[in-house]
Amino acid sequence: MNAHMSPDEFRRHGHQVIDWIADYHERLESFPVLSQASPGNVRASLPADPPERGEGFESVLADLDRVIMPGITHWQHPSFFAFFPANASGPAILGDLLASGLGVQGMLWATSPAATELETHMLDWLATLLGLDPRFRSDSAGGGVIQHSASDAALVALVAALHRVSGGATETAGTAAGRFTVYTSEQTHSSVEKACRVAGVGSAALRKLRIDPATQAADAGHLADLLAADVAAGYTPALVVASVGATGTGALDPVGTLADLAHEHGAWLHVDAAWAGVAAVCDELRWINAGVEKADSYCTNPHKWLLTNFDCNAFWVADRAALIGALSILPEYLRNEATESGEVFDYRDWQVPLGRRFRALKLWTVLRWYGARGLRDHIRGHVALAQEFAGWVAADGRFELLAPHPLALVTFALRAGDAATRSALHAVNASGDAYLTHTLVNGRLAIRMAIGSVLTERRHVEAAWHAIQAQA
Amino acid sequence: MNAHMSPDEFRRHGHQVIDWIADYHERLESFPVLSQASPGNVRASLPADPPERGEGFESVLADLDRVIMPGITHWQHPSFFAFFPANASGPAILGDLLASGLGVQGMLWATSPAATELETHMLDWLATLLGLDPRFRSDSAGGGVIQHSASDAALVALVAALHRVSGGATETAGTAAGRFTVYTSEQTHSSVEKACRVAGVGSAALRKLRIDPATQAADAGHLADLLAADVAAGYTPALVVASVGATGTGALDPVGTLADLAHEHGAWLHVDAAWAGVAAVCDELRWINAGVEKADSYCTNPHKWLLTNFDCNAFWVADRAALIGALSILPEYLRNEATESGEVFDYRDWQVPLGRRFRALKLWTVLRWYGARGLRDHIRGHVALAQEFAGWVAADGRFELLAPHPLALVTFALRAGDAATRSALHAVNASGDAYLTHTLVNGRLAIRMAIGSVLTERRHVEAAWHAIQAQA
Repeated sequence: MNAHMSPDEFRRHGHQVIDWIADYHERLESFPVLSQASPGNVRASLPADPPERGEGFESVLADLDRVIMPGITHWQHPSFFAFFPANASGPAILGDLLASGLGVQGMLWATSPAATELETHMLDWLATLLGLDPRFRSDSAGGGVIQHSASDAALVALVAALHRVSGGATETAGTAAGRFTVYTSEQTHSSVEKACRVAGVGSAALRKLRIDPATQAADAGHLADLLAADVAAGYTPALVVASVGATGTGALDPVGTLADLAHEHGAWLHVDAAWAGVAAVCDELRWINAGVEKADSYCTNPHKWLLTNFDCNAFWVADRAALIGALSILPEYLRNEATESGEVFDYRDWQVPLGRRFRALKLWTVLRWYGARGLRDHIRGHVALAQEFAGWVAADGRFELLAPHPLALVTFALRAGDAATRSALHAVNASGDAYLTHTLVNGRLAIRMAIGSVLTERRHVEAAWHAIQAQA
Repeated sequence: MNAHMSPDEFRRHGHQVIDWIADYHERLESFPVLSQASPGNVRASLPADPPERGEGFESVLADLDRVIMPGITHWQHPSFFAFFPANASGPAILGDLLASGLGVQGMLWATSPAATELETHMLDWLATLLGLDPRFRSDSAGGGVIQHSASDAALVALVAALHRVSGGATETAGTAAGRFTVYTSEQTHSSVEKACRVAGVGSAALRKLRIDPATQAADAGHLADLLAADVAAGYTPALVVASVGATGTGALDPVGTLADLAHEHGAWLHVDAAWAGVAAVCDELRWINAGVEKADSYCTNPHKWLLTNFDCNAFWVADRAALIGALSILPEYLRNEATESGEVFDYRDWQVPLGRRFRALKLWTVLRWYGARGLRDHIRGHVALAQEFAGWVAADGRFELLAPHPLALVTFALRAGDAATRSALHAVNASGDAYLTHTLVNGRLAIRMAIGSVLTERRHVEAAWHAIQAQA
C-alpha cells in the first residue's frame, strides 16, 4: 500500500468519496451545526507519529467519520447562519475536482493556455452577469482575475494604488517613497487594516471614516474633511476602500461619491463587495453596485454566496497596467515567447503568489449548470427568506432591527440589552440547532442572521427564529 | 437544469468526473506535453455570453475535451520535466475533494476545530518525517501552518521579520519605522523580490548575494560584508533568505553560516526549500537541511514534489509570537470564547487572507496512503533517474553539466554554445514529446531537466535524452 494509487484504485476510492459527500449532504441536518469539540479533542484521537507503512483508503474514510466529523462546524448545514455563507455546490465541487485531476499551473499563459483564457473569459461572463461597467472587461484597458480571497484583493489593490500614486517610485523605494494614507469606514472588513500592515504603510496610515448611525454607511463628508486635512499636512492619499455589503451589518457605502473624492486627490478607489456583490445577478438588486462604474477595482466572492467553493475571489481592475507594473518581475526561468509577444495575460503578474490552480473550471461548471436564471433563483430565494425573517423580528416587541437589510443579512438585538442578546445567542448556538454570530451596531451587541446556504429552506429559518424567541 | 444539483445527480456526475480523471491519467502519454495552442484559440471556442438557462453536466464534460484539453500543458505527463514538478497524486486529489465536499472555513479554531487541529498535527508529522528541529513543532514556541505558496511564505516571513526587528513599530508606522534591508542570493526565487515590493520595503532594499560559480550557492562572505556596510550606513537588516534547492539550478546555500550572520545583526533567517526540502524524508538526503535548525522560519512545498496537489506550502516558524504579532487583528465579528481562552491556534493570524480551505485533509490522505516508506520510494526513484541522466550527459562529449545535481534537477548545456542549446530545447518542446525549461548559469543558457512526475519511468527519461541528443 505504499505504491502510487492506480487508476483502478482511484476509480474505486473516488466513487467512495463522491458517495460519501452525497451522503453527507443528505444527512447534514443530523449534525449539530456548531462543533461540540473542546480544544485538543481532535488531536487526542490522532497517532503522535506518521505511519511508517501506507494504509488503505478505507481506514482513512473510517477515521474521517470517527475523528474529524465531531470537530466539524458544518458550513453547508441548512441552519448555518453565521458569518457569511460559503457555498459549495455540486457543480463547483466537480469543477474543482477536475482542476485537481488536471493538476496544471496557470502562472503563465504558456504553462497552460486554457487556464488563463478560461479565467479571463469567465471573469468577462461574470462582469456581464453582474452588469459591471465595460471598463472592467478584458477587451478594455482592464480585466478580471481570480484571487484567493477578498483580503488578497485588498492587498493587491493597495500595492497597485501605491505604485500608481507614486509614479512607480514605491517599486524600488517602498513606502518610504511618500507619506501615504488609506481610508475606509469603521464597518469595513479588517482585511483593509491587515493590508495596510502587510504592505508596509502601517495601521497608523489608515483613517477610519465615521458612519451614518442609521445606515452604517461611510460618511462621505468625513472622507472629504480627512482628505483635505491630510493633503494639507503633506500626506499622499493612496487608497479609499468602499464596501458594498460591509461585514458587520451589510452596509452599502456611497461608492460614487467616495470615488469622486478619491479621484480628486489622485487616490485609487477599491470596492470590497465580497459577500453582497454577486446579488447583482438579479436586475432588481443591481442598484447595490451604483457608483462602481467609477471604481479603479472591484471584488466579489463567488465562494461566498455564488455557489462556487473556496477559493474564488473575482477581482477586476479598470487599469491592468498599474497592477502589472506593481507586481511583475521576470526572471530568466520564466521567460517565454508568448509573454514576450505581449499578446497574452500572465496572471502571476496580477497576484502575490506565482503558482495558480485552475480555478476558472469551477466557475465555468457553476455558470453553465445554473445559467443566469439559476443564479438569480438562488439569490432571490435567500433575499425573500431574509425579508420574511426581518418581518418576524419587527413584529415581536421583544426584538429590534438594528440596520437596513435589503439583501440576506438581518442584524437585530433584544430590547432587554446586550446581556440578554448574548445569552440568547449562546443558547441557540450551544443547542447545535442553528449557528449565528454577532457584531456591534452603534455600540450595541447585535445578532447577525446571514441566510445563504444552498440547503436552507423556509423551515430552517423559521426553526431558528423560534429557537431565538424561546430564549428571549 | 437551473435548480441545485441533487445528491443523486451529484453521485452520477461525480462518478463521471472521477472516471474522466482516471482515464486522463491512463491516456496522459497520448497528449503532447506542451500545449500547441496559440493566443486566443481557447477563447475563440467559447460563447461570448454566459448561458441564460442552465445546461447539463455532460455538455460541460464534452466541452472539456473539445475546448479545454487542446489548451492544456500537461503537468502530470510522465515527460513533463519543466520548472519543478506539481504532483497531483490519487490520495491527494481525493483528500482535496473531501475538503470541497465539507466546505468548511478554518479561519478560526472555532469555525471548525478539526480543520485547525489536523493541520497543526500534519505539520508536526511532516516535521518528524523531514527531521526538522523540535523548535518548529507546535509543542514548542513555534509551529507549522499551510500557506498558499512559497511566495506567500516569503511574504509573511518578511512581515514577521520587520515586526520583530522593529520591536513592533512597523505595525503602526509601517516600513517608515526604519531603513530595512533584505538579503538573498542571485539564484533565489523572484518571490523574495516580489515580497520586498509587496511589503513596502521596495526592491532597492534587497541586496543580492554573489554566488560561488561552481556550486551556485550564496557567498556567506559577501553577506558578512554587506551586513557590516549596511549597519555602518544606518540600515537595519531585517531578513536573510537562504535557499535549499534554488529555482535555477537547485543550489544549496550554507544555511547555518547565513543564519549565524543574520542573527549577529538581529535579522530573521527564512529558508526557502520549496522544491527540495521534501527530499529530507529520505535519511540519506537529510543533509540538505543542514543548518535549518538555526532558522527562524522554513518552508517546503508538498504541492511540488511530495504528492499533494496545489496548494499546499508547509511553513514553520520557531517563534509564532512574532508571526501572530505581525498579522493579528481581532474585529468584533470574529471574537469567540476559544480564541479568548488562548488555548487554540487561529490560523487566520498566521497568514494574509482570512478564509482558509481545509487543506490538511489532503496532506493526511497522502501521508497515510503512502506512509514514510512510500514517500521515500517516490523521492528515491526520481533522484536515481536524475543521477543516471546526469551520467548520460557527462558521457556525451557534445554536452556539459553546469551545476551540482544531488537531487532530481540536472542543469546542462551544449558545448556548441547558447544558440545550439536554445535551438535543441525549442525543437524538443515543439515536438510535444517532452517539455523542459531553461535558466542561466554563470551567464550561459542552460537546460533544466527536472524529474518528478508521479508517472515518470526510466523509459521517459531515456526518450527525452534521445530527443535532446538528436538535436545536438
